[in-house]
Amino acid sequence: MALIKKPINGMKDILPDEMQVRDYVIHVIKETYKSFGFTSIETPCMENISNLSSKQGGENEKLIFKVLKRGEKLNLDTAQAEADVVDFGMRYDLTVPLVRYYSNNSNSLPSPFKALQMGNVWRADRPQRGRFRQFMQCDIDILGEPSNLAEIELILATTTTLGKLGFKNFQIRINERRILKAMAAYSGFDEQSFDTVFIILDKMDKIGINGVADELVESGFDKSGVDKYLALFKGIEEADNGIKYLSDKLEGFLDSEISDNLQEIINSVEATKSAQFDLIFDPTLVRGMSYYTGTIFEIAMPEFGGSCGGGGRYDMMVGKFTGKDVPACGFSIGFERIILLLMEQGFKVPENSCKIAYLVEKGYPGDKLKDIISMAQEERSAGRQVLVVRMNKNKKFQKEQLSNEGYKEFKEFFNRD
Amino acid sequence: MALIKKPINGMKDILPDEMQVRDYVIHVIKETYKSFGFTSIETPCMENISNLSSKQGGENEKLIFKVLKRGEKLNLDTAQAEADVVDFGMRYDLTVPLVRYYSNNSNSLPSPFKALQMGNVWRADRPQRGRFRQFMQCDIDILGEPSNLAEIELILATTTTLGKLGFKNFQIRINERRILKAMAAYSGFDEQSFDTVFIILDKMDKIGINGVADELVESGFDKSGVDKYLALFKGIEEADNGIKYLSDKLEGFLDSEISDNLQEIINSVEATKSAQFDLIFDPTLVRGMSYYTGTIFEIAMPEFGGSCGGGGRYDMMVGKFTGKDVPACGFSIGFERIILLLMEQGFKVPENSCKIAYLVEKGYPGDKLKDIISMAQEERSAGRQVLVVRMNKNKKFQKEQLSNEGYKEFKEFFNRD
Repeated sequence: MALIKKPINGMKDILPDEMQVRDYVIHVIKETYKSFGFTSIETPCMENISNLSSKQGGENEKLIFKVLKRGEKLNLDTAQAEADVVDFGMRYDLTVPLVRYYSNNSNSLPSPFKALQMGNVWRADRPQRGRFRQFMQCDIDILGEPSNLAEIELILATTTTLGKLGFKNFQIRINERRILKAMAAYSGFDEQSFDTVFIILDKMDKIGINGVADELVESGFDKSGVDKYLALFKGIEEADNGIKYLSDKLEGFLDSEISDNLQEIINSVEATKSAQFDLIFDPTLVRGMSYYTGTIFEIAMPEFGGSCGGGGRYDMMVGKFTGKDVPACGFSIGFERIILLLMEQGFKVPENSCKIAYLVEKGYPGDKLKDIISMAQEERSAGRQVLVVRMNKNKKFQKEQLSNEGYKEFKEFFNRD
Repeated sequence: MALIKKPINGMKDILPDEMQVRDYVIHVIKETYKSFGFTSIETPCMENISNLSSKQGGENEKLIFKVLKRGEKLNLDTAQAEADVVDFGMRYDLTVPLVRYYSNNSNSLPSPFKALQMGNVWRADRPQRGRFRQFMQCDIDILGEPSNLAEIELILATTTTLGKLGFKNFQIRINERRILKAMAAYSGFDEQSFDTVFIILDKMDKIGINGVADELVESGFDKSGVDKYLALFKGIEEADNGIKYLSDKLEGFLDSEISDNLQEIINSVEATKSAQFDLIFDPTLVRGMSYYTGTIFEIAMPEFGGSCGGGGRYDMMVGKFTGKDVPACGFSIGFERIILLLMEQGFKVPENSCKIAYLVEKGYPGDKLKDIISMAQEERSAGRQVLVVRMNKNKKFQKEQLSNEGYKEFKEFFNRD
């Protein structure tokens, strides 16, 4: 049977040009995050299917690539449902594995624990431009830090990294789950209906404030409640300081510590940031995952329609594994989108070493080849990049191609030498 | 339901200490291979199951983690066999994916193409010490180079890398599939029985030359043929130059170009090597994979019983995808074994940046926190690694722990400041 040359639909072969950019970006990310005291960790790409189906992952749990049981454990004859034939699954994000990792190893980890994870995740999504079924995620998380020092450091580390990669004039939008809830409660919505409200609010970008209002009413929410809700958003927009406005307006619904805390994050980041970006309070920011408990944030790039990363505080998730909650906060860079943007911009990786190609004529005597290789070895140990290849018949074309790969210097070796 | 804290049996969480070593080794490997003109590529971790079950992978094909079909494609009710319910599988090595990648993309790739691949592979093996069900492989391959320049560069690149990681006094054992075959043919063995002969020969390490002889006879091979075969191995051992000995002895069975070619590889590597190792002709080296067509080689480390990597020439595999053969040769480092050895030796990653911890007393005023972070930001941009953490009640213990993580310098910030 002939073999299939294409990769699996929705997954991709990464060619040398893109790989060079990826390797460079990974290097910048690792070095920058390291300077903030984050340490690399790694978890297996597969997890027990029960951990992946524990309702932490929201919609992503519907997109799991599941792994077939093996050997005696597999009984296709008696199998009734998927659950009978699978035991593992491919991770769909890095957060569930991180929390499992922390729960499993917390005795050997420092506290607070500042983790950097870069790795592939898989989602059996419908493939589309810029969305793949295997893609790299890049997360930093701080576990064990209850104060907003976590948020401040996460935002600074991420934005410093983006700045080093040449991005500027982007925005970090920030909000608070508890402010979202207080606004809904103040408007008279039922706590059970908050999720429905937020799903509709999340469409603000697309349908505008009136669209949100219409949809809320259509969904059966009281017109007066909806009006009260919308008035809050208008009030924020008109206020000099939206957080201050809410803090006054939501008295009785919102603990002032929560708004002060958010304001402190914004002030500290604005005063110490090293990249060019704006940190903006956005009361319409929802973020889908149900596990967030406090601050939430998202990167908005002018060059890219959607979000280029995001994160937030999830103080209740470690407890799902250990029975004891641990404060946690994380920020994920949209690695693949960053790469896509850089590739589209024709980004060139800074070359710091000299690239030389040795062209050796075909039929060059084998016993003299070692002199050429010996010379190459010396140049390599002096930090140069040396490619030793056979000389093609069309040497001019060969040199042009090598030149496209960055080889600007050539040495030629002929049989007659 | 409580979640499972442990990773999947046979897969591992990588703790910060090991991760530091891994990151360092990956960096050294990438930089060294780059200096030889290898370029990084990446293929998806999943492949179509038909590619993985095409008899290229030998025994490894029995160890594939298979991925369940999804949605309408999955029909458990009518499923008779595994093949009915799976479409993809996790790759068990990097060679099959590389050859598929090359076949798919050869028009956009240089020729010869020097590829570096580092990535995880999966094998549903019985877990044991030092053997995991997910592990990193690290391969370099040269496609499109028919001459022994490929072997010479692969061996030099790999051994230079090992040398930079501090390994010395190791051996590279080298052999030729066609010499193996010529020796068997000279001894009068049938071509159909070669594989059986080589499987027995492969046990030489464990059962010795007499063990091999006994087992050959037990398997029904002619006593006089077995004697002739063994005499060859004894002859090699006693000869000054085993390859020269064989070249004379096997006249009519072995083309002298083949032995000259092997001798040239050994001479060139010996004359140009930068690490301390011996390159030794080993006529008992077999290497399992059936796809090898010429030179084969393996790394033997004194610190480690088994092989720490290996490779060889496989000129016929690209043709399985494209119908047109392309010369190919590869060398794989046993990445996980290298890491295991370094960890056991207590290897410390060279630190090139100064690590400073800022301890901030709890309750430090939020509006003044930004001055501390601002200072940290300045130190970071000057290349230092700065960790900002809350001061614990037991500050002495906290500093001891941070000191173990490499933080040797401390700055303390108190509320009264």
